[in-house]
Amino acid sequence: MKICIPATSANLGPGFDCLGLAIALYNEVTIKPSRYQSISVKGEGEENAKLKSNNIFVSIFYEIYQEVTGKKDPFRFEFYNRIPFSRGLGSSSAVIVGAIASAYSMAGIKVSREAVLNKAILYETHPDNIAPAVYGGFTSSIVENTKVRTLKKELSSQLRAVMVIPDRPMSTAHSRTLLPKSYLMKNVVYNLSRASLMSAAFFSENWDVLRAASKDCMHEHRRMRQLRELFEVREVALQNGALMSTLSGSGSSFFSLVKQENAAKVAQALKNRFESFRVEIFELDNGGFQILQS
Amino acid sequence: MKICIPATSANLGPGFDCLGLAIALYNEVTIKPSRYQSISVKGEGEENAKLKSNNIFVSIFYEIYQEVTGKKDPFRFEFYNRIPFSRGLGSSSAVIVGAIASAYSMAGIKVSREAVLNKAILYETHPDNIAPAVYGGFTSSIVENTKVRTLKKELSSQLRAVMVIPDRPMSTAHSRTLLPKSYLMKNVVYNLSRASLMSAAFFSENWDVLRAASKDCMHEHRRMRQLRELFEVREVALQNGALMSTLSGSGSSFFSLVKQENAAKVAQALKNRFESFRVEIFELDNGGFQILQS
Repeated sequence: MKICIPATSANLGPGFDCLGLAIALYNEVTIKPSRYQSISVKGEGEENAKLKSNNIFVSIFYEIYQEVTGKKDPFRFEFYNRIPFSRGLGSSSAVIVGAIASAYSMAGIKVSREAVLNKAILYETHPDNIAPAVYGGFTSSIVENTKVRTLKKELSSQLRAVMVIPDRPMSTAHSRTLLPKSYLMKNVVYNLSRASLMSAAFFSENWDVLRAASKDCMHEHRRMRQLRELFEVREVALQNGALMSTLSGSGSSFFSLVKQENAAKVAQALKNRFESFRVEIFELDNGGFQILQS
Repeated sequence: MKICIPATSANLGPGFDCLGLAIALYNEVTIKPSRYQSISVKGEGEENAKLKSNNIFVSIFYEIYQEVTGKKDPFRFEFYNRIPFSRGLGSSSAVIVGAIASAYSMAGIKVSREAVLNKAILYETHPDNIAPAVYGGFTSSIVENTKVRTLKKELSSQLRAVMVIPDRPMSTAHSRTLLPKSYLMKNVVYNLSRASLMSAAFFSENWDVLRAASKDCMHEHRRMRQLRELFEVREVALQNGALMSTLSGSGSSFFSLVKQENAAKVAQALKNRFESFRVEIFELDNGGFQILQS
C-alpha cells in the first residue's frame, strides 16, 4: 500500500493551537510485506542516518499494528519525503497521521478519519496540524475530554498557498519557551475575536476580512524575532496582494494565502527580495491523507 | 417614524466580547416632530422617572442629530420597551443603535448599517451586542483601528431562544470587576479554540458541536457565582435537549439555543424548576434594527 499525507499550516495568525489548513505537498510512504524489516528514505532527510535507525513513523506504525493484530510482522517502508523538517509545515503531524492510518490499513482494519484523528491527538497534543492532515481543507478544532472535535471547510480551487521556506529551521519546543505563560485580557480578546472571525471568513468564503482577522498578538512577534526577515516577508506578501500572511505553525516558514491570479506576482516579489529562501506556490488540499492499495 | 431594535445575547460562552446573536424581542421608539420635546415610556422602565429626565436614547439621538443638521429640533419620543434592563439582553446596545439609526433617519440622511455600527462602537466599546442589534443573525466581530468588522450568518427559522430572565439584575460594570486581569495560556487556548469552532458551527449550521464549543473558562463561572441557580439552569436546559446554554452577556439572564420542536419542553422544565424566574421562548431575529416611516 501507499499513503500520501499533506503538509499543513497551523495557527494562521490568531488561531493558536486550533486553526489549520492543508497544502497540496505530500509525503509518500510505501509499505510492503517483506522477510525483514527495512527502511529507505528519499527526499527530505535522505542524508540523515537517524531516520533509518530511529524512525518515528515506524515506531508509531508498529505500536498501532501490534495493538490491533498482536503481531510484529516485518515490512519494508519506503519514504519519499517532500515536507521539509522543522519548518512549521506539519512534517511531524504527517508522520503521526500517516503511521496511524497505514497501520490500521495494513492490519486490514477499516477506521474512520475521526478515529485516526483521535489516535493522533495522543501523540501530538494540539489538533491544529493533525486535523487538516486528516481531513484536508480549513479546520477549526477543539480538544474535549481527550477527543478532538473538528469542523472542516473545503478550500476554493481559486486559492493558492505561497510558502516562504527559510534555509534555517525553528524548533517548536524552543519556540514555545519564548511565549509568555499568561496573557492580559485585552490581548486574549484580540486573538479570540480574530480567530472566530477567521473561522467565519473561511466558512463563508469572505476573503476581504482576512487581512484584519489574521492578526495575532500572542505568539508570532516573539517567534519571528528569531528570524527578523520574516517581518519583511509579511510586508512584501501583503503589499503584493496576499489575502493574509502568517507564520506557519511555530515557523520558520511563512504562509500566504493568495488568489490564484496573484500567486505568481506574490511569489516573484518574495523570490526577488529573499534569494536564500525557498519560495513556492502550492495548491491547497481538500482530502487529507489518502491510502492507495497497490 | 418608528424604529424597532432587537434584544441580543452576547458572548455565547467562549466568545467573550465578540460573538452575539439577535433575538426577536424588540424595543420600539416612535419619534415625531413636536412643538416641545417630550418623552413617554411604556413597558420596561415605565415606573422609572429618571428615564424621562435623563434619557440616554434622547441624549445620543440629539448628539447625532445636531452633528448632522446643526439644529436641535423638538421631537416627541414614545418608547415601548420590551427588553428588560440590566439582564444581559442588550438593552443598552438597543438604545445606542436605535438612537443613532433614528437620528440619521430623522435628519433625512441615508446611512449604511456599517456606518451605524461604527458610530455605535464609540458609545459601547465591545461589538458583541451592537453588531447583532445592527445586522441581526449570528455575528462574529472584531474591532480594528476603532472600526468594527463583522461577519453575519442568518439563523435558521428552526431555532428558538429559550431565555431565563431572573428577578434580579446583574450589573455589567460590577460583573467585569469579578474577572481576572490575565489568563493562563491553556485557558486562552480553551476559549479561543471554542469561540472559533462556534463560529464555524453557526456558519455551517452544524449544531452537534455546539454543546462542546459553547464551554467557557474565562468569565461565566465567576459571574454565575453571583446567582448560583444559574448553574442549575444550564443543567436543566441541556438535560432537556438545548443545543447550548450560556450566560447571556454578563447576566443575569441565561440563553439556551433550542431546536423549535424542543423549545416547549425546555421552557416548561425551566419554569417548573425556577418559579420566580421569567422563562420565555423567542424566535431569532435576522434583520437587526428596522425603521418604519409612518
